[in-house]
Amino acid sequence: MAVNSPLPVASDLTPVAGIELGFAEAGIKKPHRKDLLVLKLASTATVAGVFTTNRFCAAPVQIAKAHLASGKAIKALVINTGNANAGTGETGLAHAQASCEALARLLECEPSQILPFSTGVILEPLPVDKIVAGLPAALANLRADNWFNAAEAIMTTDTQPKAASKTVVIGGKSVTLTGISKGAGMIKPNMATMLGFVACDARIAQPALEAMVRQAADASFNCITIDGDTSTNDSFMLMATGAGALQIDDTTSPEYAALAEAVTALSQQLAQSIVRDGEGATKFITVKVEQGRDGAECRKIAYAIAHSPLVKTAFFASDPNLGRILAAIGYAGVDDLDVAKLDLYLDDVWVARHGGRHPDYREQDGQRVMQQSEITVRVTLARGTAAATIWTCDLSHEYVTINADYRS
Amino acid sequence: MAVNSPLPVASDLTPVAGIELGFAEAGIKKPHRKDLLVLKLASTATVAGVFTTNRFCAAPVQIAKAHLASGKAIKALVINTGNANAGTGETGLAHAQASCEALARLLECEPSQILPFSTGVILEPLPVDKIVAGLPAALANLRADNWFNAAEAIMTTDTQPKAASKTVVIGGKSVTLTGISKGAGMIKPNMATMLGFVACDARIAQPALEAMVRQAADASFNCITIDGDTSTNDSFMLMATGAGALQIDDTTSPEYAALAEAVTALSQQLAQSIVRDGEGATKFITVKVEQGRDGAECRKIAYAIAHSPLVKTAFFASDPNLGRILAAIGYAGVDDLDVAKLDLYLDDVWVARHGGRHPDYREQDGQRVMQQSEITVRVTLARGTAAATIWTCDLSHEYVTINADYRS
Repeated sequence: MAVNSPLPVASDLTPVAGIELGFAEAGIKKPHRKDLLVLKLASTATVAGVFTTNRFCAAPVQIAKAHLASGKAIKALVINTGNANAGTGETGLAHAQASCEALARLLECEPSQILPFSTGVILEPLPVDKIVAGLPAALANLRADNWFNAAEAIMTTDTQPKAASKTVVIGGKSVTLTGISKGAGMIKPNMATMLGFVACDARIAQPALEAMVRQAADASFNCITIDGDTSTNDSFMLMATGAGALQIDDTTSPEYAALAEAVTALSQQLAQSIVRDGEGATKFITVKVEQGRDGAECRKIAYAIAHSPLVKTAFFASDPNLGRILAAIGYAGVDDLDVAKLDLYLDDVWVARHGGRHPDYREQDGQRVMQQSEITVRVTLARGTAAATIWTCDLSHEYVTINADYRS
Repeated sequence: MAVNSPLPVASDLTPVAGIELGFAEAGIKKPHRKDLLVLKLASTATVAGVFTTNRFCAAPVQIAKAHLASGKAIKALVINTGNANAGTGETGLAHAQASCEALARLLECEPSQILPFSTGVILEPLPVDKIVAGLPAALANLRADNWFNAAEAIMTTDTQPKAASKTVVIGGKSVTLTGISKGAGMIKPNMATMLGFVACDARIAQPALEAMVRQAADASFNCITIDGDTSTNDSFMLMATGAGALQIDDTTSPEYAALAEAVTALSQQLAQSIVRDGEGATKFITVKVEQGRDGAECRKIAYAIAHSPLVKTAFFASDPNLGRILAAIGYAGVDDLDVAKLDLYLDDVWVARHGGRHPDYREQDGQRVMQQSEITVRVTLARGTAAATIWTCDLSHEYVTINADYRS
């Protein structure tokens, strides 16, 4: 069960003018399950994305990057769950390309105007025939108000769909944003997550859109971790349909800044939904590292805490075994860190001062915070003004159960 | 239960002339448990060690390093379990120093001739009075054949004591080696492990001993990982009592090379014992990465595989979900790795060739190997001649149980 994450309500998800979504049950891994999704874009749309930095990046990631780089207007995205099409070599590339070709024929465009995405098991051949066979059904139910179904159609081990909408008024013009995401395990995105799609109805020039997607990813999907495993298929796409009134030509305008902020906020909500629904998660943990020399060292320390199996199991147990947090800080790889200047807080409780146990710290205060379902760990380094925030979850029996059984 | 690791037999552990061991039940954390150990050395002995690189290194580690650096002959080591004396600030340093002073009074030497070691919970004050009160009992039962008891006296979450002996003949002279180690969680040593002590009866000049301890640590304790958590207290000590016939003056002699090889082999056995007894371990995994450009990139990839929670849970489940290994290789941080040249083997089974599934790979072959209790993962990179080997274990429900309950 996801931590403090109510199920999105279909009627709360606002359609974005210029984009329609259609799904199908293609039987890719299991029958009677939404597992194929098509997003069809208006001709005025621009699309930009960020992708996994995993060297084993999946075939669809390679094809999507190549198609984006070709500069042609993107007409549609095709997404399957149940199979990652990763570690599949030349055959995998041919399969991803074949999916694009099939959809391009149906939409009467070029294959390079289609972006493919896959998620699921690695190292198994993509059942491309099932995808091709399912496309007509997906196109037949294309609708602007299909966002909830779309969120369901990209789930793997997720226990619930992830989706959110937001409307902002910028320069007197209304902009509608809606996005979906998926992911629950193999989550430590590095440039983006597995998978996120956000659409808005502004008209945004391609270079500005590319800047905006990086800015949003760096402050959202690149700040979460569940198990430290960076997926082969991570992709985060931002689509601007151009069907609304707002137009953004470059990154220098106040309108750019306002919309980037809205996109970032929506992306953070979607990214946090992934952590709240992390495999086996029972706690939602915010790790803040402050007063560092630069963001990189703050992130190093925050990730060391967020990845430590010992810290994560202590959160699961609600056990204030907080020395484990100090140990993680100590091995994070900041070689000249002076731990004698470091303070540690758990929510409002001051646990360690100058690198040692605070004289007023009482076990029952730590215990009280550890029993909460949402906890903030805050570390101050007293060596600068940089800071970083990472969101993560605990490590429970259920994580082991899910990942020992995932393929069965 | 430890993986294929028979309990050491007390009578198989050979005394090392020039060293006596005494233990006590000091009640540090729990009553009626061996938790205090003294190792007393002959006046001819030399001692060298390597210590944790964790910035939060424990008070005893700081004191032990300072006492070694003082250049005085080391007379004894004092080791407690039940409390790590880490994250304890100035008070912790005073406590570690007080333990040395108490033992120095009893042995009529200077405090700087004593090395202190602690292992257990972090961030809690060391009950130094109990240690001081327990020292006379430990000295009263000093014996040369107390190695098995000594191994028991340093255990924390270990399910069994870890000890081994070896006798080698070098240049016609017999050398006896005996060592003990402990550790089961918070194990990713970085310069040494938590804790290892090896003694031999050769006479070894200090600089040669220091070279030997680094050489042995790098090929043994620095090649293991259980959960990627580098402890605050890791220490590996090599003691040469000088009571035997062999004398080694520098690192250039054939005798040095022969003894270093024997010390390394014994250290590897002790290090592997730690992994076999890893918290919740049901499998012993050897990860070999070959044909790399340098050792560093081979180790990066081997550790990425060994630390991946998804790889570790697949081993626990005996599930050949081997795409998870490819994903870990891909995010290991070797930025110019060409995955299209990479091969993956599981024991004798060729799983992936040129970065994709091998056409002849059959699921049942992977399944057969995954069901074994000892498995070798071998990755070839086809870009050089360097190699690295790491030993690790799987991630089971029992690991979560142990670490969710450790302090209770």
